[in-house]
Amino acid sequence: MDEPGTGTLAELGEFGLIERIVDPSGLTDAIVVGPGDDTALVRMSGEVLITTDMLVEGVHFRQDWSSAIDVGRRAAAASLADIAAMGGSTRALVVSFGAPPSTPSAWAVACAAGLREEAATAGACVAGGDVVSSPSIVVCVTAIGDAPAGGPVLRSGAKAGDVVAICGRFGWAAAGLAVLSRGFKSPRALVDAHRFPEVNYAAGVAAAKGASAMIDVSDGLIADAGHIADASDVTLDIDAASWEIPDALASAAAAYNVDPRVWMLTGGDDHALLATFSPRKKLPEGFFRIGIVVKRTDDPVLVNGQPFAGGSGYDHFKD
Amino acid sequence: MDEPGTGTLAELGEFGLIERIVDPSGLTDAIVVGPGDDTALVRMSGEVLITTDMLVEGVHFRQDWSSAIDVGRRAAAASLADIAAMGGSTRALVVSFGAPPSTPSAWAVACAAGLREEAATAGACVAGGDVVSSPSIVVCVTAIGDAPAGGPVLRSGAKAGDVVAICGRFGWAAAGLAVLSRGFKSPRALVDAHRFPEVNYAAGVAAAKGASAMIDVSDGLIADAGHIADASDVTLDIDAASWEIPDALASAAAAYNVDPRVWMLTGGDDHALLATFSPRKKLPEGFFRIGIVVKRTDDPVLVNGQPFAGGSGYDHFKD
Repeated sequence: MDEPGTGTLAELGEFGLIERIVDPSGLTDAIVVGPGDDTALVRMSGEVLITTDMLVEGVHFRQDWSSAIDVGRRAAAASLADIAAMGGSTRALVVSFGAPPSTPSAWAVACAAGLREEAATAGACVAGGDVVSSPSIVVCVTAIGDAPAGGPVLRSGAKAGDVVAICGRFGWAAAGLAVLSRGFKSPRALVDAHRFPEVNYAAGVAAAKGASAMIDVSDGLIADAGHIADASDVTLDIDAASWEIPDALASAAAAYNVDPRVWMLTGGDDHALLATFSPRKKLPEGFFRIGIVVKRTDDPVLVNGQPFAGGSGYDHFKD
Repeated sequence: MDEPGTGTLAELGEFGLIERIVDPSGLTDAIVVGPGDDTALVRMSGEVLITTDMLVEGVHFRQDWSSAIDVGRRAAAASLADIAAMGGSTRALVVSFGAPPSTPSAWAVACAAGLREEAATAGACVAGGDVVSSPSIVVCVTAIGDAPAGGPVLRSGAKAGDVVAICGRFGWAAAGLAVLSRGFKSPRALVDAHRFPEVNYAAGVAAAKGASAMIDVSDGLIADAGHIADASDVTLDIDAASWEIPDALASAAAAYNVDPRVWMLTGGDDHALLATFSPRKKLPEGFFRIGIVVKRTDDPVLVNGQPFAGGSGYDHFKD
């Protein structure tokens, strides 16, 4: 790759940008044909998991809160986590990138680097894409992955008596957003969690052998537990005393006089893996128990056996 | 599917919209897991063609010039044509859809119908997607397809002596845009060509057996011929006398006092299939000869043996 230069996308041009963001050295062995033709060609096992996610400036991120690398990593993580939540292994990402012509070309080049970095943490790479002009920055990532040998882990397999378990942080990204929204840049750990999530992609693959249902927490713990509950026709009873409030969340919540459990129960974007397991099975490494599956009640999700009154999660078109 | 209703996306909500745009009845047999889980699961043959394209309101389309169905069809066609240009068969599309909360829900529902209709013309379907809030409407389509048995048709296989041939209209979408830009709504055939292309997807599959190189004309005939030329290290010499100017283009050009060949040589978005074939092979049905491949000269593309002075095609970040 050449240097990104100091100019704008208007000066660099569409094809100049493509030259600067394509990095054939990072392609994995799964890529038979990489960027530069009408499509990429990816070697797969036969059944293909596919998912797409779009990040929009001003909706999902702000340039003063997130660097271009952060935005690239976060955009890639959203799709990579979806493949992991099926127990699958991502083989390739393709990316559509829209930006105003006035955007510094260095921003686009750094965003592409972030996409590649995050893909690499899951053993994948960026195999192709599209760049277009757009009034605001839009990053759309599609991931394709191989399904696990025994078939993907769906949302619909949870059974009464199963254990509910989670792998990864939850509530941290929401707490980070609350910090930034109040004009602060610290605690750094929370702000970093908003910038991009740390997802244990390998834990999703490992859970494929034993999990009866799985999802990644993108909308919020209660909302996504509700998606498993509705698909499986069961109720998930979350034991909110089963985890300690992390110090970073507790102290930020105390400073803002809010209940940190609301972040942990309703905050999205951390992409923790939420799964259910037969009570006879040992939980895979990285997962810890946070509740139990019971027969369907009036509510898809209970917290400590009671309906939760604090809302469930984020709806993109509502306040 | 329910009725779209008369309200906005803000009233319908993210999950209400998803309910209204998902149509399980349209899923093909290739879809093992359809919409409603973390990812879709698609049965494929082993090597997977993948491509992504983004359409942005105000850049690629205007709501007063294109209906929601048009936008859906055009967005799907861009990716379907890329798979066809590799000689492949699309198995599934996934779609990320961004729109302001004030967007009428009927618009989003109609756009989804357009995506499904166009996918069906290529034997494919919409297997999943994402809906988000966005300051302007953005439709990002990713297609996955099976590569042809003998491997995909790349841009890099053209050889001196090969015949250059094309399947489908070219210049029509650009002429339609010129008509609309001047405030007219007719001739209807040209305006319709701007609204969405008519792509012969099956011709791409048929050409896979004989074509040495192939691309779809999305940037313009000269620009895309140049992509084949550069990838193959040859020059494509286009014989502009090898086709008749269609009446609709000739009369619009006469009315606006422009040269219709500029539309035909530089206009994109028709997604005609441009391919090269050994001179010993019969052209597949739907293709006609428009030139010849010669040894590389200073110019990637010649028109009637001469460099073309009228520009080559569209650059997204330049005027």
